[in-house]
Amino acid sequence: MLQGKVLIAQGGGPTAVINQSLVGAVQEARRQGAEGIYGARHGVSGIIAEDFVDLAQETDANLEAVATTPCSALGSTRDKPDEAYCQEIFKVLKAHGIGTFFYIGGNDSSDTLRILLDEAKKADYALRCVHIPKTIDNDLMVNDHTPGYPSAAKFVASAFAGANEDNRALPGVYVGVVMGRHAGFLTAAAALARRYPDDGPHLIYLPERTFEVDAFCKDVQAAFDEHGRCVVAVSEGIHDADGTPILAKLSAELEKDAHGNVQLSGTGALADLLTDAIKNNTSIKRVRGDTFGCLQRSFLGCVSALDQREAREVGIRAVQFAAAGQDGTVTIHRVGDYAADFRLNALEDVAAKTKVMDDAFISDDGTDVTAAFMDYARPLVGPMDAAERLRAPAVAKLMG
Amino acid sequence: MLQGKVLIAQGGGPTAVINQSLVGAVQEARRQGAEGIYGARHGVSGIIAEDFVDLAQETDANLEAVATTPCSALGSTRDKPDEAYCQEIFKVLKAHGIGTFFYIGGNDSSDTLRILLDEAKKADYALRCVHIPKTIDNDLMVNDHTPGYPSAAKFVASAFAGANEDNRALPGVYVGVVMGRHAGFLTAAAALARRYPDDGPHLIYLPERTFEVDAFCKDVQAAFDEHGRCVVAVSEGIHDADGTPILAKLSAELEKDAHGNVQLSGTGALADLLTDAIKNNTSIKRVRGDTFGCLQRSFLGCVSALDQREAREVGIRAVQFAAAGQDGTVTIHRVGDYAADFRLNALEDVAAKTKVMDDAFISDDGTDVTAAFMDYARPLVGPMDAAERLRAPAVAKLMG
Repeated sequence: MLQGKVLIAQGGGPTAVINQSLVGAVQEARRQGAEGIYGARHGVSGIIAEDFVDLAQETDANLEAVATTPCSALGSTRDKPDEAYCQEIFKVLKAHGIGTFFYIGGNDSSDTLRILLDEAKKADYALRCVHIPKTIDNDLMVNDHTPGYPSAAKFVASAFAGANEDNRALPGVYVGVVMGRHAGFLTAAAALARRYPDDGPHLIYLPERTFEVDAFCKDVQAAFDEHGRCVVAVSEGIHDADGTPILAKLSAELEKDAHGNVQLSGTGALADLLTDAIKNNTSIKRVRGDTFGCLQRSFLGCVSALDQREAREVGIRAVQFAAAGQDGTVTIHRVGDYAADFRLNALEDVAAKTKVMDDAFISDDGTDVTAAFMDYARPLVGPMDAAERLRAPAVAKLMG
Repeated sequence: MLQGKVLIAQGGGPTAVINQSLVGAVQEARRQGAEGIYGARHGVSGIIAEDFVDLAQETDANLEAVATTPCSALGSTRDKPDEAYCQEIFKVLKAHGIGTFFYIGGNDSSDTLRILLDEAKKADYALRCVHIPKTIDNDLMVNDHTPGYPSAAKFVASAFAGANEDNRALPGVYVGVVMGRHAGFLTAAAALARRYPDDGPHLIYLPERTFEVDAFCKDVQAAFDEHGRCVVAVSEGIHDADGTPILAKLSAELEKDAHGNVQLSGTGALADLLTDAIKNNTSIKRVRGDTFGCLQRSFLGCVSALDQREAREVGIRAVQFAAAGQDGTVTIHRVGDYAADFRLNALEDVAAKTKVMDDAFISDDGTDVTAAFMDYARPLVGPMDAAERLRAPAVAKLMG
């Protein structure tokens, strides 16, 4: 039995499957006979603004179409409520008779629910809260993985599989910068692009390890000397031994040269700084850098089938847990090879915490992933198109 | 009857379907009973290096797998031969008894064949040459469109469809920079992302029109004021009234500020410069820029079915024309709505020339495409996933 009207919202960065969770929650709330199903536009900011839509009036046909659309159909927000913000939220929830709140999001959104639940108890407002996980960063504690990650990982792997072929056709160095400030899971997914022994990425730089520009340039030169080309996957979150992001470090040096007049900003800057470092410190001429930017979380038509199913499932399960009178966060656990189990954990277990890659997933030299990571990631991403090569033998030279 | 052994090579930038043309040519050469079918690695540079593979020994099964792999399976080159280079080519061709050469590429590759054919006549070397068209830029004269463009256009449209949803979820300004130095066809394909009247891209900047930074910032502010957000598609080739690329112009201004010490380079620079211009000249706070880079020509798994078929067809037709004793370039012509006809034109008709967008394809204000462009592009890209929206009505406000 669901307490009061149901409210659903989406927070943080979009993913390819976040609307699967929304649709799962709406359909299950309908099955559970909810007295009302509202959606808040743009996360908690829409609650304050009393900006609700009546999701009970959605057709199943349209819900299914929305489910396969990337990004957050209700809109999102980066707002994180404090005590005063929560009081405003309760006023609106009370006016509309809302007793159950589902928030689809990452560690910030789960922390929002934690704060909200604490404040609700203090205010003696009867509120049921269940967090529905999503994040392309894959950095939620307790979870084996997080909805949104498998599809983003498929995009990254597909991009590197193509970039590898591009780099084979026109040899040189290719640097692809991938999202993930603290956790390297998404960058590591570039390894799924490899099939042949000499396929790229030949180097992978993760935020779990310290990054040194000199060592980076030497690694690139060595890989280039071996393969006649080099494909590199770099996390946007790479940092030096002091934890200073490489982007800030390299930009600062440039600013100093420029007497402080030049600001480097925008998403393409790190790739450009790294390709400049290679050009300046190696003998390699053809160097290209791409930053995958928002494409890796929103591109239309690149999705993992398993991710779609699991994202739907966590939405459904969240409503079932709430109907059983429980608060918390839905978590995904790997059982067997591969099967998943969905459980409920306390919000505190994931709220505002960040999971990073296990040491067992990172090679000893810190520039590659291990077989254990490949075993972890492959079933999540599922089948991909295969990049195949000509096998024709060389023709004997006649010119001496 | 094919003259001598057949040689096939690939030149210029990769595309998603260039290997379809390779496979079409190999299979048709086999059907025509060619006495040998060689592939040159890395275009004409592989001829000089006598770096051939024996394509007659490829299995049909593997050829079909290679056909659906993006980029150039034989490898590519940016080399453009002069007279001395051609003499070296003839020595190698003569040694191997090669009498027919197929070069898959864009305007540079067709010009290479033109030079080669001229030099062969002078040298009295019996060489049959047929150019097989490809380019994501879609800038070959005579052709209605060029193999490779429809798939790249699908990537660009899919990226903007996702970016539009991302921008709806977290409003602000989004600038996506698309390839195409002189022709705006690929940037224009961003318009295919639109379904609802307020969908982005809200502004499209093409190299066929003069770009002014001040007007750009005003356009962006106006679109933002209207929609509360703004998605912009920009060609990498935008330039000022003097033809100076905006990237060079803005970088030069920054260099001047920096007393000439700072070099801005790399593929992300234009997007970063444009987003900086918006931040500095409008009141808009959230501004993001992406550069699609090599993804738009090599991404694994984003292809137009029509593009695949036509790329195969131009490879097959090239061999048929050569077997009939003809030199030239295979061209695609639109007949009816939509059907295609494949003809042979003189190399001079396309070699080293550049087609740009017709005025009828560009809106009067120069920041959008017309219905005529949409009619032109839609059948090429074919069906795309649809980005669907919630239709739930707003809940009446109770808080006054």
